[in-house]
Amino acid sequence: MTERTERDQTIWLDPDFPDAVCIIDQRVLPHGYTEMAVDSVAAMAEAIRTMAVRGAGCIGVAAGFGMYLAALEARGMKAAEADSSLQAAANTLTATRPTATNLSWAANRQLDRLLGIDDDAERVRRALALAQDISDEDIAACRRIGEVGLDLIRAAHKRLGRTVNILTHCNAGWLAFVKHGSATAPIYAARDAGIPIHVFVGESRPRNQGALTAWELRNAGIDHTYLVDSAVGHLIQRGDVDMIFVGADRVTMSGDTANKIGTYLRALAAKESGVPFYVNFPSSTLDPHSFDGIDDIEIEERDGDEVSHVRSKVDGESTMARVLSDGSPVRNPAFDVTPHHMVTGLITERGLCEASPEAVAKLFPDYVARAG
Amino acid sequence: MTERTERDQTIWLDPDFPDAVCIIDQRVLPHGYTEMAVDSVAAMAEAIRTMAVRGAGCIGVAAGFGMYLAALEARGMKAAEADSSLQAAANTLTATRPTATNLSWAANRQLDRLLGIDDDAERVRRALALAQDISDEDIAACRRIGEVGLDLIRAAHKRLGRTVNILTHCNAGWLAFVKHGSATAPIYAARDAGIPIHVFVGESRPRNQGALTAWELRNAGIDHTYLVDSAVGHLIQRGDVDMIFVGADRVTMSGDTANKIGTYLRALAAKESGVPFYVNFPSSTLDPHSFDGIDDIEIEERDGDEVSHVRSKVDGESTMARVLSDGSPVRNPAFDVTPHHMVTGLITERGLCEASPEAVAKLFPDYVARAG
Repeated sequence: MTERTERDQTIWLDPDFPDAVCIIDQRVLPHGYTEMAVDSVAAMAEAIRTMAVRGAGCIGVAAGFGMYLAALEARGMKAAEADSSLQAAANTLTATRPTATNLSWAANRQLDRLLGIDDDAERVRRALALAQDISDEDIAACRRIGEVGLDLIRAAHKRLGRTVNILTHCNAGWLAFVKHGSATAPIYAARDAGIPIHVFVGESRPRNQGALTAWELRNAGIDHTYLVDSAVGHLIQRGDVDMIFVGADRVTMSGDTANKIGTYLRALAAKESGVPFYVNFPSSTLDPHSFDGIDDIEIEERDGDEVSHVRSKVDGESTMARVLSDGSPVRNPAFDVTPHHMVTGLITERGLCEASPEAVAKLFPDYVARAG
Repeated sequence: MTERTERDQTIWLDPDFPDAVCIIDQRVLPHGYTEMAVDSVAAMAEAIRTMAVRGAGCIGVAAGFGMYLAALEARGMKAAEADSSLQAAANTLTATRPTATNLSWAANRQLDRLLGIDDDAERVRRALALAQDISDEDIAACRRIGEVGLDLIRAAHKRLGRTVNILTHCNAGWLAFVKHGSATAPIYAARDAGIPIHVFVGESRPRNQGALTAWELRNAGIDHTYLVDSAVGHLIQRGDVDMIFVGADRVTMSGDTANKIGTYLRALAAKESGVPFYVNFPSSTLDPHSFDGIDDIEIEERDGDEVSHVRSKVDGESTMARVLSDGSPVRNPAFDVTPHHMVTGLITERGLCEASPEAVAKLFPDYVARAG
């Protein structure tokens, strides 16, 4: 089991595995590297639920391909049965992670396209085409987010005249999308543009997705430093951080943002010290049906074993190591909500957007219409 | 190796180990329990540096007993040689942890008492008496901190009419002192007074001293919930926390507080949501020679291995498990500074004190005089 890969894409089709979708099994990273072929809706739902595939964009694309698997499974069914099977698949895929918007966004797009089609081959053909479109859109959106964020890094570099220190949280890297990432897209773009940058990477307990970001940056040859989550306030307070890019699992029409647990604390520290705090996301993460992030977003509570244990490597073996002794109850909220007044700007494929209800409505009039 | 103990004291003398000082080896907790006899200044310095003995009060008392070991080591030396040996011991003990005040506080008290004494037996007798005094004072101060904090918990219970939810950070429990603890003293006092309480315990990466607090509370039968450090902002934002008690490694004459890394983030979240944030400490932690916490306090940077690995239990064995893959640089600041304007109050054995230069000067006029 190697720890490296030449691959730069998280989800793909492989002719060696017909009727399946291939993914990187992210549960194994960074202590090893394996790929897996997912060949049923149930298996895709399990892969999303257990976070073999994870990250806002990536699970949206996985749900899109999951609906392609659903179309394959519907072959030979009567039309009504096929429709109800597709609907059930969409429900199954959407229910895997309650906070993330991209799941229902992708599954519903597929349902709109597939319901009522009576021809098996046509249904499969359309499902595959849309899954590939969703994947291509994700790649294009992240590339564009990189360009928008690059302008901000370039301006910071011009102003500071030295290496720009960027803080991120969790992994909103290419592993969390199809390629490029959202929070990392400007970082990769700055590297390509030759702007000197250094990235602070927080661990992101309980699942340590910061170690995935460190793995990405190390493989990309980008200067970075790894920290425990509690250390970021100190660094921001001491002026060691010039700007912050995080991803999002759901953004509301007010600009409130649900992202990996701990994002809110970073925003508080950034606000206290006047450090710009950007939320990077493709418009697939914007939820037209929510406005107040605290009232409207369900926060996923995950299994306490993720907190009492940690994925680690012991004697060369990937292991779940126990860090808490028996007998102590655990809570494990996976996300928190950062109110929009703490967010300097939203970086989307449509451009930079002030984090306010008015600015979001102006940049996303089609979402206002959908919410209507 | 058991995980439990009937002991409720971290440092003591045992007639079975003459010329040594006994401690609980806290590196092993909570995955096991062992005690060790420390029989030289060098061994005590190593125990403090490696955090076999840890916590503001506990390392102060350890330094006090370390100077008793220094007096034992000075037996048979000429007077001048003994003095220089005592001075070297004080320097060695103080240099083990740069941020903590209690080390120099205890070592300097011993030097004041011991330097210039020409009689070996008298020097040893005085060193032992003062070490025991320092230990007794620590116990008494923590007990009094418990009483002062209990009044606040009692008032909260009266106001809320339900279980009081208390958040703490790291371990400022009895393990971090001789008995009772500082942050935990009001919690133990509330338990004894029959006031219903529930304690949220943050993990406190990198060394997971939260697991020590959970171990203490479980053994004491106190209702508690364990969380990753990033989760505390979410809980405070949602109104799940009624009050916060933390300890301190150094408090300045302005009321600025250095405590375990991550304390500052908790203070920011508490301030944002209007949750009372108390810093509990015995006056041995007040530093008469520092005023501005950010300028005047050296923040200890510890080994990166503490971040890239985590103390854990795998297959029944206590193990350092690797959580970060090779090749990523690490930073590991052990403390951060919370400015006094974010602190609701300082809880000391002299009573509750507003966190302001004026209030600190009024409650601690002897410290103002020492600062000279």
